[in-house]
Amino acid sequence: MANRVQEFNAFRSRMNDRILGADNRAIKRFFGVDTLTYERGVLDPKTKEMLGLVASMVLRCDDCISYHIQQCKEEGVTDAEMFDIFSVALVVGGSIVIPHLRRGVAFLDELNDQTAKQ
Amino acid sequence: MANRVQEFNAFRSRMNDRILGADNRAIKRFFGVDTLTYERGVLDPKTKEMLGLVASMVLRCDDCISYHIQQCKEEGVTDAEMFDIFSVALVVGGSIVIPHLRRGVAFLDELNDQTAKQ
Amino acid sequence: MANRVQEFNAFRSRMNDRILGADNRAIKRFFGVDTLTYERGVLDPKTKEMLGLVASMVLRCDDCISYHIQQCKEEGVTDAEMFDIFSVALVVGGSIVIPHLRRGVAFLDELNDQTAKQ
Amino acid sequence: MANRVQEFNAFRSRMNDRILGADNRAIKRFFGVDTLTYERGVLDPKTKEMLGLVASMVLRCDDCISYHIQQCKEEGVTDAEMFDIFSVALVVGGSIVIPHLRRGVAFLDELNDQTAKQ
Amino acid sequence: MANRVQEFNAFRSRMNDRILGADNRAIKRFFGVDTLTYERGVLDPKTKEMLGLVASMVLRCDDCISYHIQQCKEEGVTDAEMFDIFSVALVVGGSIVIPHLRRGVAFLDELNDQTAKQ
Amino acid sequence: MANRVQEFNAFRSRMNDRILGADNRAIKRFFGVDTLTYERGVLDPKTKEMLGLVASMVLRCDDCISYHIQQCKEEGVTDAEMFDIFSVALVVGGSIVIPHLRRGVAFLDELNDQTAKQ
Repeated sequence: MANRVQEFNAFRSRMNDRILGADNRAIKRFFGVDTLTYERGVLDPKTKEMLGLVASMVLRCDDCISYHIQQCKEEGVTDAEMFDIFSVALVVGGSIVIPHLRRGVAFLDELNDQTAKQ
Repeated sequence: MANRVQEFNAFRSRMNDRILGADNRAIKRFFGVDTLTYERGVLDPKTKEMLGLVASMVLRCDDCISYHIQQCKEEGVTDAEMFDIFSVALVVGGSIVIPHLRRGVAFLDELNDQTAKQ
Repeated sequence: MANRVQEFNAFRSRMNDRILGADNRAIKRFFGVDTLTYERGVLDPKTKEMLGLVASMVLRCDDCISYHIQQCKEEGVTDAEMFDIFSVALVVGGSIVIPHLRRGVAFLDELNDQTAKQ
Repeated sequence: MANRVQEFNAFRSRMNDRILGADNRAIKRFFGVDTLTYERGVLDPKTKEMLGLVASMVLRCDDCISYHIQQCKEEGVTDAEMFDIFSVALVVGGSIVIPHLRRGVAFLDELNDQTAKQ
Repeated sequence: MANRVQEFNAFRSRMNDRILGADNRAIKRFFGVDTLTYERGVLDPKTKEMLGLVASMVLRCDDCISYHIQQCKEEGVTDAEMFDIFSVALVVGGSIVIPHLRRGVAFLDELNDQTAKQ
Repeated sequence: MANRVQEFNAFRSRMNDRILGADNRAIKRFFGVDTLTYERGVLDPKTKEMLGLVASMVLRCDDCISYHIQQCKEEGVTDAEMFDIFSVALVVGGSIVIPHLRRGVAFLDELNDQTAKQ
């Protein structure tokens, strides 16, 4: 299971290349806007990643949750802050969010284990 | 595949402990309300579990479906009643529910197999 | 506001006639299945309407909620039972359900007012 | 009610100007990609608008449905073709789509009335 | 239209009283958890309200959006920050969010007009 | 991974038999309507399958996406047309669709590999 983080990132990266290589103009530009959205604007990247995480949780997308948990960690979001984000997602989105919360926390724990080993 | 039921319950139980151990007040209280909701009120637990199952199906959450199928069986919901619940979920939620129905029925069959072997 | 119930039912009935009159075979048969689903099966119509109500609430469809509240009342669901159904919808679907709960309860109150006046 | 089409388009146009005037770079670029998506690609605009309509229906967004019904009519989609699109949306998305179908058909009828009067 | 803000708050407040008065234990406790969630935790109330706003937008609930826009303003979120939140919601949730964005911005403009007049 | 296509179809077919064998009248008739919907109507099957694909993508159901990609290929939809469908799904449904797009394209590539080997 220690490889779940690497596997996730490898598949993500490989398929993004495949998709962008198909050279569909609207898709390529959408990916561009997606990247731009999380860059520093009036809000800093840390806040934007926290927004991306809570949005992914209420929409219940495991891969998006994993991705934004990684990004949040890189922006310095602490585990305690992460659980405050989770609490908003849970109350807004309801108990239907719980299975995604379980998998998200499992992913966070793997990330933390890998950092501890480095 | 016979272990899918046990694996599901073990992961569920382990991650619930991990999440509650993080000691986030809102999350802990949400879990408390979640438990309270399915206790006998004006409606009995059997009816409430059937409501939880149909809600999980139209929201298309496999883990929630598995969980409520287990609870429904414990409350004495028969397989034929279960399929009546499935029919409401299917018609309200549309063909997009079908893949979740397939996995839900596969889970129900595993549960029944294990009961038969005991 | 006392006419909201009548207006809702009149629009619903008029548009159903218009849609079925368009004579699209798949649409007509879908409407047939929809009606069949709430007829007595292994589960009685009262239970099925309660299932339809909770499904409509977590999917957050005001018209569907109004419709199933009417049907539930006709099947003898009491107000206290109705609130137990609402509680399951709220906990499964989260705070995002609350605005629909407010409008649903307002609709239920209008229905009760009209019955009291008869 | 004859003004619902005009009111919808006036509000849509006024608020789009307001939003783009706020000069948020990601939002402006998103609106650009949105426009580009329905331009002729490998698929023609008529097919793309039909895709936009069915997507709007299963996601149950009344304004998006109204907008794409207008666009479909401009691209020459007939009423009978429109009902075939509606049937796919209904079966994929379930009975929860019906209230949106009713309002969509009412909007289509208003559009047709206005065209007949011109 | 200047009264839309007051009307929204009056209906919200009146129906909350009605719902809590029904004395359903799970519903009352859910409302309690909902309030608790936005209180200062590890994250401050401003950040939590921003999280609540983006979650409401991607789940496309107009009333929830109006409510959190009000709360964000009270916590000092500027209009420019608000549009950064909108951009994340738009890119995560897609063009289906646009009609809700239009109504949200219209609500924000009314709020600003009323503040300017005071 | 070369077996993912076969495994998917085998599970789908086996569970459909199991579900229809349960002899629930509403479920059986729903499956009948589902089949009817994609048959030639005013629109041809190719267009209907494209509609089914985009609807499945914005509702984010991996199995439905896989199924409709297969059907689209059988109806002669080219890869370039497929990416135009993907672009509409992406823009309407937002970045939350991307993980499903990745898995859909991976499935399409496997289908193409198997065809090439025959």
